[in-house]
Amino acid sequence: MKGPLAPSRGPLRAVGLHQVQITGGFWARRQAVNGTATIEHCAAWLDRLGWTGNFREPLATPRRRGREFSDSEVYKLTEALAWETARPGGAGHRALAEDLAALAGGAQESDGYLHTGFGRDGQPPRYSDLNFGHELYCAGHLLQAGVAAARTGVAPQLLDVARGAADHACAQFAERGFCGHPGVETALVELYRVTGQERYLAQAAAFVARRGQRSLPEHEFGWRYFQDDTPLRKARVFAGHAVRALYLACGAVDVAVETGDDELLGAVRSQFARTLARRTYLTGGVGSRHLDESFGEDFALPPDRSYSETCAAVATVMLAHRLLLATGDLTYGDVAERVLHNVIAAAVADDGRAFFYAHTLHQRTPAELAPAGHEQLRFGGGQRAPWFEVSCCLTNTARLVASLGTYVATEDDEGVQLLQYAPMRLDAAGLRLEVATGYPDAGDVTVTVLEAPPQPRTVTLRIPAWAGGGSHVERRVFAPGEQIRLDLPLRPRWTFPDPRVDAVRGCAAVEVGPLVMCAESVDQEDGVALDEVQVDTAVAPEAGAVKGRTLRPAERDWPYRRNPETPERPEPVVVPLVPYHRWARRGPSTMRVWLPTIPS
Amino acid sequence: MKGPLAPSRGPLRAVGLHQVQITGGFWARRQAVNGTATIEHCAAWLDRLGWTGNFREPLATPRRRGREFSDSEVYKLTEALAWETARPGGAGHRALAEDLAALAGGAQESDGYLHTGFGRDGQPPRYSDLNFGHELYCAGHLLQAGVAAARTGVAPQLLDVARGAADHACAQFAERGFCGHPGVETALVELYRVTGQERYLAQAAAFVARRGQRSLPEHEFGWRYFQDDTPLRKARVFAGHAVRALYLACGAVDVAVETGDDELLGAVRSQFARTLARRTYLTGGVGSRHLDESFGEDFALPPDRSYSETCAAVATVMLAHRLLLATGDLTYGDVAERVLHNVIAAAVADDGRAFFYAHTLHQRTPAELAPAGHEQLRFGGGQRAPWFEVSCCLTNTARLVASLGTYVATEDDEGVQLLQYAPMRLDAAGLRLEVATGYPDAGDVTVTVLEAPPQPRTVTLRIPAWAGGGSHVERRVFAPGEQIRLDLPLRPRWTFPDPRVDAVRGCAAVEVGPLVMCAESVDQEDGVALDEVQVDTAVAPEAGAVKGRTLRPAERDWPYRRNPETPERPEPVVVPLVPYHRWARRGPSTMRVWLPTIPS
Repeated sequence: MKGPLAPSRGPLRAVGLHQVQITGGFWARRQAVNGTATIEHCAAWLDRLGWTGNFREPLATPRRRGREFSDSEVYKLTEALAWETARPGGAGHRALAEDLAALAGGAQESDGYLHTGFGRDGQPPRYSDLNFGHELYCAGHLLQAGVAAARTGVAPQLLDVARGAADHACAQFAERGFCGHPGVETALVELYRVTGQERYLAQAAAFVARRGQRSLPEHEFGWRYFQDDTPLRKARVFAGHAVRALYLACGAVDVAVETGDDELLGAVRSQFARTLARRTYLTGGVGSRHLDESFGEDFALPPDRSYSETCAAVATVMLAHRLLLATGDLTYGDVAERVLHNVIAAAVADDGRAFFYAHTLHQRTPAELAPAGHEQLRFGGGQRAPWFEVSCCLTNTARLVASLGTYVATEDDEGVQLLQYAPMRLDAAGLRLEVATGYPDAGDVTVTVLEAPPQPRTVTLRIPAWAGGGSHVERRVFAPGEQIRLDLPLRPRWTFPDPRVDAVRGCAAVEVGPLVMCAESVDQEDGVALDEVQVDTAVAPEAGAVKGRTLRPAERDWPYRRNPETPERPEPVVVPLVPYHRWARRGPSTMRVWLPTIPS
Repeated sequence: MKGPLAPSRGPLRAVGLHQVQITGGFWARRQAVNGTATIEHCAAWLDRLGWTGNFREPLATPRRRGREFSDSEVYKLTEALAWETARPGGAGHRALAEDLAALAGGAQESDGYLHTGFGRDGQPPRYSDLNFGHELYCAGHLLQAGVAAARTGVAPQLLDVARGAADHACAQFAERGFCGHPGVETALVELYRVTGQERYLAQAAAFVARRGQRSLPEHEFGWRYFQDDTPLRKARVFAGHAVRALYLACGAVDVAVETGDDELLGAVRSQFARTLARRTYLTGGVGSRHLDESFGEDFALPPDRSYSETCAAVATVMLAHRLLLATGDLTYGDVAERVLHNVIAAAVADDGRAFFYAHTLHQRTPAELAPAGHEQLRFGGGQRAPWFEVSCCLTNTARLVASLGTYVATEDDEGVQLLQYAPMRLDAAGLRLEVATGYPDAGDVTVTVLEAPPQPRTVTLRIPAWAGGGSHVERRVFAPGEQIRLDLPLRPRWTFPDPRVDAVRGCAAVEVGPLVMCAESVDQEDGVALDEVQVDTAVAPEAGAVKGRTLRPAERDWPYRRNPETPERPEPVVVPLVPYHRWARRGPSTMRVWLPTIPS
């Protein structure tokens, strides 16, 4: 039973949904909450806001509810329902999936077009706003839901709806045009992988190739926002709207893999590498601008106005896994580990019913809670909200977390590659393995072979870069009961930024294994303000705290003066730390990841 | 002949437009270009875009051109025409002013309502969008144009149009409601000062008092954006959209002065003081966020994403002068000096036909020029543009620069207070003075008394804070030919930020007198990248350059590492500097105001 990503070729193969069961610990808890509370929460909100209802009785504007992309929320939820229902140990949602699939089918036009916001009486015409209509973007999520339905057997009839929409898109966009928001490209390739229909692959390739000629209608945000300023093959780095750029990159990798286009694959690899080297936050989050949810310039990485949209993190995990499968390079697992443990893990409330849209690394003032009944308005971060007017993130994490098992390992003819560490049972390459670990809180990993074939097999464990990098490889004819052990050193460490990252000059952060740490106001000593503390990097960080001093800066009329400020009577202080993914779970607070340091 | 601001009471009095002529130097050049090229440029663009034409044949949507505030551009231009025509040495634009006044009158409804975008067939109803309709905002600029027309005698009939609009607004908003964008408050008070009609003052006071109860319809930007989250009297600091906050503060000061409301005046004073201490850029610019053109939190002052809208700078000068007149505190002249010399002076191209909307303090990559014909799109800074889709700034600087003479001095019964330094002739308090100076390039100021009454008079010269602060005061019976000399030390100085300003930690800037300096790429030695330089603050800055070293950071896969980066082979370098207001006048370039320093 394949998962969301099943390339036809490549040095490593994706594992299927049924091959992995995460059995305990950090991610099992999240999968459990995701598969029950979060899914119910999404379904209830989509219903309450009328986004599901749009399908039920297709309504003409202005009675249709939600924005141009609200249809896609229903599709992402359906995709999540399929993965969750089918994954080993998942909760069952077959009936709801069937309902939503039936609604989608019922709203589909006879020519395959499906979008509840265009084309009907009183609505704008189809494809009248390629910049922001999101029609193909929605279709892309429909296609991915159809793929999930087909692969899992949960509401499998959705595949036909997806095929109708894909056929329509291929006819409509045979010669020219593309959507302002990428996403359909990667979906079309996956649909090709399910159906064998070559025209879906050809259409995806065409969409990728057409972008970059400034052919979209002009918009104040500029062509770069839409990745329409430079042909993808010629771009040096990811730019523009972060989620658009990442979904497009996913599609380009999918096209490259299926068509054997090494130049295109190489282009995306080097753009991603440069983006990681110059445009990525310590948490793995990307997107530095609130204005247009976009990448900033190289090294423009302000921690306070960090955008790091949750959807961009989902897309980064998707892209990293595509590149890992396409290249065999396990260091892409480092990227996924960082993003999973610091953005995805931070995104959702413990009860699964609230989430962050954007992820700050520096909360200066405690968040104001949205007044009851006003939850949909984006109240600027600092507390997770039950929903947002633009609410793409929770259904996105829902589908990712439900299918997480397909991201934690890979296989090939020789054996198994363990990419992420969590207690799990794994069946691949003829091996049945049990993984026990306290990760990410402890660094011990024990792989027990439960079953093995009589031929040699290779078991490869990714060693994270922070633990030295490389792989631990064991190859032999394994016998049941044999164990492979890895001990990853989880000592807290200081992390310093490249001097070109202006916004965190003179600061340091603390990491422990894969976890970025932060200082949160609720843990600090009385009277210690996080914005008036300097930490002492000459002293190794302890588990859970670092040493420093308080500044108590003088209050003056003007913050720029002839002499640098030296603290008058600095007092020593201990600064407790918690994992960044735990912040904002104990009420409104202030928080810093990057801590000013005592000048040496 | 009064200027734009003429309070009825206060320790200091505004000088009239006819009392001051700036005769040479920095500001005279700008006034000359402003009064000819810039005014013609604005008139031509308003005509070309149809914003003037909207008045000519009031058109129903969608044929009406421009955004909800385009009417106000015509009014601000008319105001500028009046000041320019009437100021000593100004260019004549009486005919154009008459034309525009006639157009405004012709578009006014019989009940006094005037806005070309609401209320007609196919248009949204009047006052159907208080958040963003900008109807009273436009009326405010109409009123200010009417005041200018009345005081200068240039198209004086515009006063009647303004009165009709004011009477309508007072009737319509007698009981409740206010505009999402302040501006009408300060205008109503000035109209009261011209006409004596008490209801205009009462209405302004009501508008100020009503704000802050969260009564505007909800919007994603939140009530703070509109200064509707907290009553003005209770606010601690300026917050939300910067221009809105500043225009509202102007109106509040005007109301406070005319009604003797010391509490209200004190509230604005302390909010402004806190804003200067915590939320203002070194240039005097305000507004740290592109997303909503708003103030950021305290000390959130990123130089790269500095917004510092030109209109916010105009409003800051307006506010500072109101507070100076209301309190007699000449240090408000320091604020105006900083903003005038570093934001207003930077805003407009040398030929007067292009301008900055927002003012960055850190340009990382050279600007891309907008393609010809696409000038109206906001192309993100770095080069001044001929126009913008939202184009409030150039007509705003036009009216400010045309009336600049009324901001450079004040008077009272005892004498004259010289606030800003420029070659000028000044008639006030019975004195006729000639000021000679090389300011801001040289610090010499010579005031020659041409005529004086036979009674004692006081001549007060503001000493800028950077020169030690305070005033130079001479009081006696002056004789013609007597001179008063001031020598302000214009040595370059290092400036260091408060340690709480995260984004420029570890940096220093250079100032010379009132001028903030910057490093621009076009002046640097070959191969020296501004983002790879550290400057040596142990060495005093020379005129025009500082010493430093180049970093040449290693290129790595990930910009966060276990050890702070120390330059491998730093090379000494000289970093030439130019005044910030001169940047981006020699083609696309990179630029920094805040320069990373060699750690001590």
